[in-house]
Amino acid sequence: MDEGRTEIADMGEFGLIKHLTQNNDTRQAGTILSVGDDAAVIDNFGRQTVITTDLLLEGIHFDMMYTPLKHLGYKAVAVNLSDICAMNAIPTHITMSIGITNRFSVEALDEFYDGVYAACEKYDIDLVGGDTSTSQKGFVISVTAIGEVAPNKFVTRSGAGKGDLICVSGDLGAAYLGLQLLEREKKIFLESPGVQPDLGGKAYLIQRILKPEPRLDIVNWLQENDVVPTSMIDISDGLSSEMLHICNSSDLGCILHEEKIPFHSETKETAYEFQVDPTACALSGGEDYELLFTIKQEDYEKIIRNEQISVVGYMTDKAEGAMLLTRSGNKHKLVAQGWNAFPQ
Amino acid sequence: MDEGRTEIADMGEFGLIKHLTQNNDTRQAGTILSVGDDAAVIDNFGRQTVITTDLLLEGIHFDMMYTPLKHLGYKAVAVNLSDICAMNAIPTHITMSIGITNRFSVEALDEFYDGVYAACEKYDIDLVGGDTSTSQKGFVISVTAIGEVAPNKFVTRSGAGKGDLICVSGDLGAAYLGLQLLEREKKIFLESPGVQPDLGGKAYLIQRILKPEPRLDIVNWLQENDVVPTSMIDISDGLSSEMLHICNSSDLGCILHEEKIPFHSETKETAYEFQVDPTACALSGGEDYELLFTIKQEDYEKIIRNEQISVVGYMTDKAEGAMLLTRSGNKHKLVAQGWNAFPQ
Repeated sequence: MDEGRTEIADMGEFGLIKHLTQNNDTRQAGTILSVGDDAAVIDNFGRQTVITTDLLLEGIHFDMMYTPLKHLGYKAVAVNLSDICAMNAIPTHITMSIGITNRFSVEALDEFYDGVYAACEKYDIDLVGGDTSTSQKGFVISVTAIGEVAPNKFVTRSGAGKGDLICVSGDLGAAYLGLQLLEREKKIFLESPGVQPDLGGKAYLIQRILKPEPRLDIVNWLQENDVVPTSMIDISDGLSSEMLHICNSSDLGCILHEEKIPFHSETKETAYEFQVDPTACALSGGEDYELLFTIKQEDYEKIIRNEQISVVGYMTDKAEGAMLLTRSGNKHKLVAQGWNAFPQ
Repeated sequence: MDEGRTEIADMGEFGLIKHLTQNNDTRQAGTILSVGDDAAVIDNFGRQTVITTDLLLEGIHFDMMYTPLKHLGYKAVAVNLSDICAMNAIPTHITMSIGITNRFSVEALDEFYDGVYAACEKYDIDLVGGDTSTSQKGFVISVTAIGEVAPNKFVTRSGAGKGDLICVSGDLGAAYLGLQLLEREKKIFLESPGVQPDLGGKAYLIQRILKPEPRLDIVNWLQENDVVPTSMIDISDGLSSEMLHICNSSDLGCILHEEKIPFHSETKETAYEFQVDPTACALSGGEDYELLFTIKQEDYEKIIRNEQISVVGYMTDKAEGAMLLTRSGNKHKLVAQGWNAFPQ
């Protein structure tokens, strides 16, 4: 046995995953896609099953001080459905496991499950299993989502071609600013418990961080309009990080046009208040749960008919790197500064 | 909103699950079996998919002081495969999510995954996804297992008929005594760190608690011999608790014959050393991960050819209750004293 000690922080989340799965064999003939994408794909004699799982830990992924339990239940489901959508698949089922400390009452859990069931109802999915347990510290949530897709119609990160157009759904950067607002109000509350939170005019930002929605509408629209993305990923860690995933997996470079990145008006206003660059919020903020995907150029005419989709750039040769073309005409390398699951 | 506070401990694990899932709707036509059994069943145009999930939390489900990481990885997989086997299905895939504190080195995680992959190899299953994250406290493990079964050949807890024979695989009570041995040695070590652990002659008991095996061999044997159990469950919380699940779900009573309960010789010897009743270890000990199932009487001749299966009783009318017939000829009501996920 090697006596050396390698710190996990030195490896980073993606390095660690790569390390841990390097010897992962595939034995089942039905395993079409395994570890390394948003979800796995299993063949099922006609349709294919897509599966994904996420762990949400109190103090790491959410702060109970400003996260209403109903929203948390909804979000725990939503972020998993987003991974299924990122495969161009339709979510159908989830399992939900929770570990809870004795500070939780049944009424508190009911609120959490109200949110879980609200998400199930909205997205027409079934909760089919789970596990409940005591936790020594903190609220532990583990969700597995399952979806279905027609044979070989799933979309991975690796299929982008040179010249393909890069698209994002909705708008970016709002969830990050929503989180900054909640953190600011928490700080004020801890210093002066009597002060009421001031979140006027920020409803959109708060909703984006507390109650994200998977873009199943986009997946359905793409199918209805016969647009098959060449690659796709959901934006959980910021546009830069996800764009780099697509570039690396597809062995290509890209150019993103800063001026094309879509923002909500509240995002722009609040970014200026906080004296941060809205582009930085989009690139590195994370938690937007929008879809980032590439399409063939011939699908451009179809795509622009959907106001919820913005074309933000195109794929280039790998040698050209993954670049941002700024409003002022400068080129910057994209850097993955997304949320790090293993902070130093 | 109800202002009252209901303690989760007052409800118990099964009461809580029932409470939380009472409004759980089924929307997907493919959902054949949802919450409430060992695993859910999803129809997939030919084969059916079985899915189950378990959360394992440090300090609640395992003690890192005496649990080697490789064994822990193996066990985290094995206990989930056991749930798939309990549906009379063949496990095919797992996802594995972990939350880890910074006291973990990469080498430590490698050991854990050595165990995970060893279980995957032994049971011919694929690890197809997961999530890794920091944890503020304690090692968090969440596994989801998927299996397949021919259409409507899955076996639930609710199908037992009056007069059906009750069978258990392997032997019972060993894992509980293995745990007692490890707890004893931990106590001695904490009091006198220089003392070496004394586990001579206890290899079987230690193996049963640290490295349980799902009884896929039994599932395969049943299929090869055309025996379809009428009901089945895996024994994770003790024979009493699991027997009561089958009785309640099947709306029947039962009689278990104490003298028929199978024990390993080490179990009997060690029970006497600890001055506990081996029957109590089997009934309430838990973690044996054997299969408990019922068969029609006409399958008796087939079943007795398998030395790994013991017939321990039969199903009766509900009015007769769930009873243990002791060696001395007395009848006692079975009581679920299994491991409680929500201790008071």
